Amino acid sequence: MNIAAIFADWGTTNRRAWAVDRAGSVLDRRQDDHGLLGVKDRAFETSFRDFVGNWLTQAPGTPILMAGMVGSKLGWREAPYVATPARFADLAQQMVELPPLDGHPIRIVPGLVCRASGTPDVMRGEETQLFGLWLQARTDRLCVLPGTHSKWAEIKGDGVAGFRTYMTGEVFANLSSTGTIAQLMRKDAPHDAGAFQRGLAASESQSAGGLLNRLFSARTLGLFAELPGEAIASYLSGLLIGAELREALSGGAPAQPIAVIGSARMNALYLEGLALMGAKAEAIDGDTLLRPALLELGRQSRLM
Amino acid sequence: MNIAAIFADWGTTNRRAWAVDRAGSVLDRRQDDHGLLGVKDRAFETSFRDFVGNWLTQAPGTPILMAGMVGSKLGWREAPYVATPARFADLAQQMVELPPLDGHPIRIVPGLVCRASGTPDVMRGEETQLFGLWLQARTDRLCVLPGTHSKWAEIKGDGVAGFRTYMTGEVFANLSSTGTIAQLMRKDAPHDAGAFQRGLAASESQSAGGLLNRLFSARTLGLFAELPGEAIASYLSGLLIGAELREALSGGAPAQPIAVIGSARMNALYLEGLALMGAKAEAIDGDTLLRPALLELGRQSRLM
Repeated sequence: MNIAAIFADWGTTNRRAWAVDRAGSVLDRRQDDHGLLGVKDRAFETSFRDFVGNWLTQAPGTPILMAGMVGSKLGWREAPYVATPARFADLAQQMVELPPLDGHPIRIVPGLVCRASGTPDVMRGEETQLFGLWLQARTDRLCVLPGTHSKWAEIKGDGVAGFRTYMTGEVFANLSSTGTIAQLMRKDAPHDAGAFQRGLAASESQSAGGLLNRLFSARTLGLFAELPGEAIASYLSGLLIGAELREALSGGAPAQPIAVIGSARMNALYLEGLALMGAKAEAIDGDTLLRPALLELGRQSRLM
Repeated sequence: MNIAAIFADWGTTNRRAWAVDRAGSVLDRRQDDHGLLGVKDRAFETSFRDFVGNWLTQAPGTPILMAGMVGSKLGWREAPYVATPARFADLAQQMVELPPLDGHPIRIVPGLVCRASGTPDVMRGEETQLFGLWLQARTDRLCVLPGTHSKWAEIKGDGVAGFRTYMTGEVFANLSSTGTIAQLMRKDAPHDAGAFQRGLAASESQSAGGLLNRLFSARTLGLFAELPGEAIASYLSGLLIGAELREALSGGAPAQPIAVIGSARMNALYLEGLALMGAKAEAIDGDTLLRPALLELGRQSRLM
């Protein structure tokens, strides 16, 4: 193997790494659940060596590029946020340099902070995926990265103009795990398209308080057997994703299809919702964007 | 003791009971945490006998009147919901009769269902408090009963015209117990009036999706040390209660002060929020309303 670099995405609950050649092609890959939260006494060096050790010995001196929560306060080293509007070129320039690991230079990609609303909004990891998307076509684009914290970001010119986070996924996970809605929910049930669409419809014209009221319908429809336990998760998902989509599209849907960047499962839900709201959208596998972005960051910083 | 009746409020997590005389004055009281969820194999009879046994033997044949979740599917016996608009007289007429317990007649007050929004909304226990309030003055009144599930109800004429539930308390409890906001929150901190007001202000003009976005500020303000961990719970509380109040007042505040019926702690928060939004309100201790209502229900049903 001609390993030219090691790329990693080290998050709070799991991590992934790729050994790549000079062209960024994957030579080997690794994945485990040793997220940052599981690293005791901040022993990140040891933990990372255990993870990719033989790559390090096989290719002495090759650079390590990392993105994600590894650059947060609770990560290996804090990589200060770059403020929006941010140029993609700022990412390479503001990568944080760590002391070499066994002779391998290490860099962590900074996150972004957006203060457009008056309070800070942040991302870590998504900025690298956005850069990967931009490298493909270099066009302005409205993007959504669904997840625990869904991010809506606007690519404009050669950078990210701004973004907003929605806690949709976390609120869904919380309400699905404990409480009076979770009690009635069959959690292992497959996606129910009808219930999801019913939830999306119920999100229409709701104020913030209206959402706190509508959420209760996920319980009462179950209580009255007007929604089977198997359908409650899909209904709740539609209600929350619908609220997010309506807010994100409140200024009107863009002419260019919205880039939906996430897992296949989440992308399908967002595409379904966006289609019902008359917005054009294109699903993009988030995994395909990270490596080209890290490759380009490695080149721009003359590490590769 | 001249016990004339036994009143009880048996909820999911705890229960209270009062031995009262013919005038409804309290002769003895009892309270424990044997909520309905803790009763095994539906042994409600045994559980209730253990709770108030010596009252039963002291005053043979006296009636037992109960309100709350004891009348739900998971309770002792389901008392079908009365549909709004509902007259208070319907409560006495539609109480559910159980087989006597050791010679004591038992009745459970029905809950209410409101279908004004198209989906069912329900209450159990609050209808009895609303009846207690109405008995005091017999006037039309907008009422809020804060709690895990906050209820906004409209007393009109001689009954409840309709109501809406907001999951404000449950969403607050969920986000405060696990997840990325809870991580930064100092949970034992005292109420922070400034942070509560900041949260109330942040709830202004938010759509349903806007709330999912604004919730993230409870995390990021903490991350950026713009809000100390001790203040995050109060901020989140202001954000959620603010959203509820704005929706509930979206049709304009009533001329008559809003009746805020709950615990001293919750009443104080709602009064603070309502005052900031320019709505007149009056705090009423929810506990003072239940017994007069049960007394009147006992009389109307000729049990007392």
